[in-house]
Amino acid sequence: MPHTDGPVPTVADDRPVAPADEHARAWSPRAARSRFREGLTGPTAGVAAGHTQADLISVPADWAYDMLLFCRRGPRPCPVLDVTDAGSTTTVLAADADLRTDLPRYRVREHGEPVDEPTDVRAHRRGDPVSFLIGRSFTFEWALTAADVPVRHVEQVRNVPMYVTSRQCRPAGRLRGPMVVSMRPVPPKHLSAAIRKSSLLPAVHGGPVHRGAPSGLGVDDLGRPDFDDPVDLEPGDIPVFRACGVTPQAAVTASRPQFAPTHAPGQMFLGDARDEQFRVA
Amino acid sequence: MPHTDGPVPTVADDRPVAPADEHARAWSPRAARSRFREGLTGPTAGVAAGHTQADLISVPADWAYDMLLFCRRGPRPCPVLDVTDAGSTTTVLAADADLRTDLPRYRVREHGEPVDEPTDVRAHRRGDPVSFLIGRSFTFEWALTAADVPVRHVEQVRNVPMYVTSRQCRPAGRLRGPMVVSMRPVPPKHLSAAIRKSSLLPAVHGGPVHRGAPSGLGVDDLGRPDFDDPVDLEPGDIPVFRACGVTPQAAVTASRPQFAPTHAPGQMFLGDARDEQFRVA
Repeated sequence: MPHTDGPVPTVADDRPVAPADEHARAWSPRAARSRFREGLTGPTAGVAAGHTQADLISVPADWAYDMLLFCRRGPRPCPVLDVTDAGSTTTVLAADADLRTDLPRYRVREHGEPVDEPTDVRAHRRGDPVSFLIGRSFTFEWALTAADVPVRHVEQVRNVPMYVTSRQCRPAGRLRGPMVVSMRPVPPKHLSAAIRKSSLLPAVHGGPVHRGAPSGLGVDDLGRPDFDDPVDLEPGDIPVFRACGVTPQAAVTASRPQFAPTHAPGQMFLGDARDEQFRVA
Repeated sequence: MPHTDGPVPTVADDRPVAPADEHARAWSPRAARSRFREGLTGPTAGVAAGHTQADLISVPADWAYDMLLFCRRGPRPCPVLDVTDAGSTTTVLAADADLRTDLPRYRVREHGEPVDEPTDVRAHRRGDPVSFLIGRSFTFEWALTAADVPVRHVEQVRNVPMYVTSRQCRPAGRLRGPMVVSMRPVPPKHLSAAIRKSSLLPAVHGGPVHRGAPSGLGVDDLGRPDFDDPVDLEPGDIPVFRACGVTPQAAVTASRPQFAPTHAPGQMFLGDARDEQFRVA
């Protein structure tokens, strides 16, 4: 399975292992998970390039229905790739993965508040939690790049900016909250390709939910994202907004379940599938 | 909203109102629901043509998580279009619809066995059931026809044949069972269009799960479907199999919840959306 495993780099905690590290780009997902299990940490952008990455949210079993329903009612921001059985530590997305140890770093919330950022969460699971793995936009950025659509935040070596919108998600039990979006500026001549290519990946957020004036989503200032970095627009660029996987995390955080281990920001779960396997046509 | 409402035809119980009835083709979904509420019954194929139809399955509230998880784990056979709140009788798929009365006919199961086929189910709901509305293949047949792909069972005025396969769905709690598929024969020159056009509609079963030899799905004899009518293949036709919405019904029936009102076969819920709104690109 590991086809191009380079040497294990020595990396200080949370120093990015990627995308600068060309070895990490070429790792197999299994090899990357193995290294994270052994303690390697850092952002996963570019690691095992071309393979899908997923957000992790674990919730107490009695919150699982609300969470699953919230995601079903909001498939654009919350595209669920897998739901484990209660108490299970494995996923169909990856052979031999252990969800308690195989992410580079976790963020644990109790009653909505972050309490720890450990490299494994074996001590933080109580009862039989249910884990959700949620598709991410890394997966469609591949499709944009393949279609020669410039991806500005990558060009500018920043994280994609995210904004809390004025659109409320449809509530589900105790879970409610606004839709969070990511924004990528697109030159007009690439707009139709950007829309079409991402629309063919509905399992990982799909096409834009809005384009043009940010005020259409209740966003005042593109220069002040709610999460991560602002990105510079080139002259003529059109802001293109897609529903973002931070949405279910924000809802879980706001609704304050007893505990909720998630991935640490930017340090995702690496699945075995290739990004293009999520393309419907 | 009702844009082309013809006169209400006088129809005996279960005489097909469509597709022969050109008036019914032109009804708005709201007008059709209103007539069904007033007691009109019969197959909905062709009624309010171009608007989406959905399977209905209601389950006791304590079965809702298993059902939602079963569907999430099998999105090809079980594409959920809406899940109601417990006890709710409305759906986001249609303005002013009442799920207890607005289908032409229901089939009620108790402990897995059919006990009644009433025209409304107000007497058959206990506690606060949760209703699931599941996308159907009628919706992608529109896309096939629009691409000049022949649809043999429509040409032959039959129901689409369905087969129980040897592929097991991923279990979810108390729900388990085989994937059921529908089969449409496709001439080789139309095969790629048939695949592509249906793949663009992932919310309503999407592209084929198999094509060619039925034995690949454990199906012995195309001439003896498990549900509905065999269809004649023209010379050279390739059998194309898609996951089918009978799958979750079969699982619910086999797992024997206390009660489960569903649509009667062929007599579906009519939503307000147009079929093409489910196309992702």
